[in-house]
Amino acid sequence: MKFTVRQIAHLIGGEVEGDDSLEIDQFYKIEEGQKGGISFLANPKYENHIYKTDSSAVIVSDQFRPQKAVKSSLIKVKDPYMAFTELLTEYEKISRKKQTGSEQPASIADGAQLGEDVFVGAFSYVSPGVKIGVNTQIAQQVFIGENVSIGANCIIHPGVKIYKESIIEDNCIIHSGVVIGCDGFGFAPQADGSYKTIPQLGNVHIKNNVSIGANSTIDRATMGSTIIDEGVKLDNLVQVAHNVSIGKNTVIAAQAGIAGSTKIGAYCVIGGQVGFVGHIEIADGTKIGAQAGVNSSIKEKGTNVTGTPHYDLKKYLKSQVYFRKLPEIIKEIEDKTNKK
Amino acid sequence: MKFTVRQIAHLIGGEVEGDDSLEIDQFYKIEEGQKGGISFLANPKYENHIYKTDSSAVIVSDQFRPQKAVKSSLIKVKDPYMAFTELLTEYEKISRKKQTGSEQPASIADGAQLGEDVFVGAFSYVSPGVKIGVNTQIAQQVFIGENVSIGANCIIHPGVKIYKESIIEDNCIIHSGVVIGCDGFGFAPQADGSYKTIPQLGNVHIKNNVSIGANSTIDRATMGSTIIDEGVKLDNLVQVAHNVSIGKNTVIAAQAGIAGSTKIGAYCVIGGQVGFVGHIEIADGTKIGAQAGVNSSIKEKGTNVTGTPHYDLKKYLKSQVYFRKLPEIIKEIEDKTNKK
Amino acid sequence: MKFTVRQIAHLIGGEVEGDDSLEIDQFYKIEEGQKGGISFLANPKYENHIYKTDSSAVIVSDQFRPQKAVKSSLIKVKDPYMAFTELLTEYEKISRKKQTGSEQPASIADGAQLGEDVFVGAFSYVSPGVKIGVNTQIAQQVFIGENVSIGANCIIHPGVKIYKESIIEDNCIIHSGVVIGCDGFGFAPQADGSYKTIPQLGNVHIKNNVSIGANSTIDRATMGSTIIDEGVKLDNLVQVAHNVSIGKNTVIAAQAGIAGSTKIGAYCVIGGQVGFVGHIEIADGTKIGAQAGVNSSIKEKGTNVTGTPHYDLKKYLKSQVYFRKLPEIIKEIEDKTNKK
Repeated sequence: MKFTVRQIAHLIGGEVEGDDSLEIDQFYKIEEGQKGGISFLANPKYENHIYKTDSSAVIVSDQFRPQKAVKSSLIKVKDPYMAFTELLTEYEKISRKKQTGSEQPASIADGAQLGEDVFVGAFSYVSPGVKIGVNTQIAQQVFIGENVSIGANCIIHPGVKIYKESIIEDNCIIHSGVVIGCDGFGFAPQADGSYKTIPQLGNVHIKNNVSIGANSTIDRATMGSTIIDEGVKLDNLVQVAHNVSIGKNTVIAAQAGIAGSTKIGAYCVIGGQVGFVGHIEIADGTKIGAQAGVNSSIKEKGTNVTGTPHYDLKKYLKSQVYFRKLPEIIKEIEDKTNKK
Repeated sequence: MKFTVRQIAHLIGGEVEGDDSLEIDQFYKIEEGQKGGISFLANPKYENHIYKTDSSAVIVSDQFRPQKAVKSSLIKVKDPYMAFTELLTEYEKISRKKQTGSEQPASIADGAQLGEDVFVGAFSYVSPGVKIGVNTQIAQQVFIGENVSIGANCIIHPGVKIYKESIIEDNCIIHSGVVIGCDGFGFAPQADGSYKTIPQLGNVHIKNNVSIGANSTIDRATMGSTIIDEGVKLDNLVQVAHNVSIGKNTVIAAQAGIAGSTKIGAYCVIGGQVGFVGHIEIADGTKIGAQAGVNSSIKEKGTNVTGTPHYDLKKYLKSQVYFRKLPEIIKEIEDKTNKK
Repeated sequence: MKFTVRQIAHLIGGEVEGDDSLEIDQFYKIEEGQKGGISFLANPKYENHIYKTDSSAVIVSDQFRPQKAVKSSLIKVKDPYMAFTELLTEYEKISRKKQTGSEQPASIADGAQLGEDVFVGAFSYVSPGVKIGVNTQIAQQVFIGENVSIGANCIIHPGVKIYKESIIEDNCIIHSGVVIGCDGFGFAPQADGSYKTIPQLGNVHIKNNVSIGANSTIDRATMGSTIIDEGVKLDNLVQVAHNVSIGKNTVIAAQAGIAGSTKIGAYCVIGGQVGFVGHIEIADGTKIGAQAGVNSSIKEKGTNVTGTPHYDLKKYLKSQVYFRKLPEIIKEIEDKTNKK
């Protein structure tokens, strides 16, 4: 699809400086720009790229005053990053091919309730008692267990597996390979050193506007629900154990893991490969550095921690400096002590 | 399904105190109890909940003497936690829908040997030479490679992939997305800096009563077998490399990883996100803290370690205390040293 | 398949010492050798096994002079490890069953271009606009999105999911459960604390001779490409975020993760569970210890680091020694200081 610079400026509410008839059909980072493409300049430290880029158009701040000649047409807006994001979103909407109905062969149980304009891809399996809301797209090779409920406008990518009784609300995006509602890791130790499986009879409840990255796993609760609240964004390969709850709009980077019954607050930002022990509570707005090991509750809102076991970010960094110099520091002290 | 308090008491061998005709159809944690539900009280620190819960019945110790009025009917047993677990297990058995035969379309090779009451779900693929024992349930979208042998009473959840020659014994539960028997990570460095793939011609051998959590990966051996011994429980997203062996009844939490040829003993308890280097041996009964990095063999049974590189848990925690205070301690010492 | 010792010696260019008519049909590690099997001895520290092994033949160095009686026939070559690898490779080639055509039911879009001798397994889905090169094997339950291009001689194992527009060149091996081209983790924070999804319109480009281990995830770029260069080997459960690039012949062990826009050089060796923050650059030939947390660029080629945050391997290990002894060291210093 091609659009003129003029059409794009109109869409994002910008002013054109330069040729507004150029045609655009691709997005580029400004440093990789090519003819026919559009880029953006938000961070002044990349300004030098605008004098070299081959992108036909660049979205810039309405405060931007070029210091040298610029080949590209400029589209001036208040917030270039947000305008560019908006443009990507519009483009994605237009170019997304929406399908409805079902592809053969798919297996859809009698009595499963599919809303209007639902799509079910080939080799997908929809069990009895399933409800799927309007406009939701179930891609290929998806498994949906008994009595699962999926809301409206969701995208379930190829190969997702959703165990029975799970609830997913509206506008969720679940990427390939995600497993929702698998058994929690619950085993009762026996006298002979073996373990007996504790049945996991609860479910998973995922609220509106949640995104879950590829190959992440969300365990069902033993009783009650594992809860992923509204607006939560999970990256790839994240592990959420049974009876965990994650508060509204919390984001969790790849490969982090949360052990059973831990409650993560709202608006938290959690780095990659972080681990949480079970049965703790994390206050709203907590920020946790990558690879931290969180082994106790964090009660104060807006705390910033890192390390294993976790503690205050600034103190951790200070101790790290000393850790690295330990051999020298101790030698120095010993020298002094011995001299006296 | 509904059961009366009387029926439940009978099932778990308890005495009823209160109305034994109430009907139960749900399980709740005591603090979330609702009418029609049953809960348990094992840990005295939750005792206060029993005076407030809306659960119709609570399973308690036969030693329990209420300090205040309790609304719920009580079922008194010796060990409330075990009795409750037993009840969940019975419930799960009764409510599980057992299917047999195969769903269309499934692809089952001529000559594959399926035991009595085996089920194979839609879109599953069973290769030539496969043997499956009685009562085993192969869910939907499962792949079973050539000459794989699966024992009796196993549950293979949707989307599991099992490469050729793998052996899985009886009563195993394999969750969605697990990959068994994929190639070990074996590459021979070449003079030009590239790598040549070393064929992985061994297999994976999983013994009785093993559980494997969602999206875990178990590599086949280069030669011989990667071995998961009887009763082992692996959580989600665990990585087991080629030629590893894991001893009887060892449990491994989510996202842990074991590098090639390492031998983990029996009855070990291994935390989440732990990593093991290759070619080491871990004694029976070792306990390893979450996120530890184990870089050498552990020879003494029953050792308790943590940290990267791992060492004695108590010593690690002590050093951590000093680590955190390093800036203050060193300042203090320097002050003293300089004063003198 | 059975081969005589003579045939094998001929294949790998070795000299036989002992009975060259023995038949071989299995590979064993020397310490697990059995009759009818072949093993190798490369590392002198395993020499004692050659006097006890039941393997019918052992490949040894042409410099090897037995100190005691050896039951097995010997095949003498220059480099026993390389010769054995070569033998495994040949065996694997011969024993691999090559299929062509497609198994029913598979869904192959009209106009998808499949090269000669391509195989597509049952329950696989090939979207419109897909191109697949000669000899490539697409196993069962694979999803291939629109306009994906896959080169020649690739093996795509069961259940792999490849999102639209991805490019995979020749001779690549992709293991089960891998997800290629899923959305990068890109969200723009909004004034109310929620996040807006930033469309990910780029792709993934995987060059020749790449191997990707089971359940790994490779995100598509926001714009442009996430690049996995020639000869890269990724182990299982590795996470590669959007706009990352990984240089030629770099190997990355299991469960490592690379955050967005980071550029890893060529010929690097990266341990298991390593994490990289986003937007950094790692020089060619860098070696990174398992579980390290790399939080800044590494500019010097051939650097060897470990720890979180990473630094020089030798210094880290030295500081670790002091860390462990901190309680004692500090006590000693304080005693001395106080005494004076």
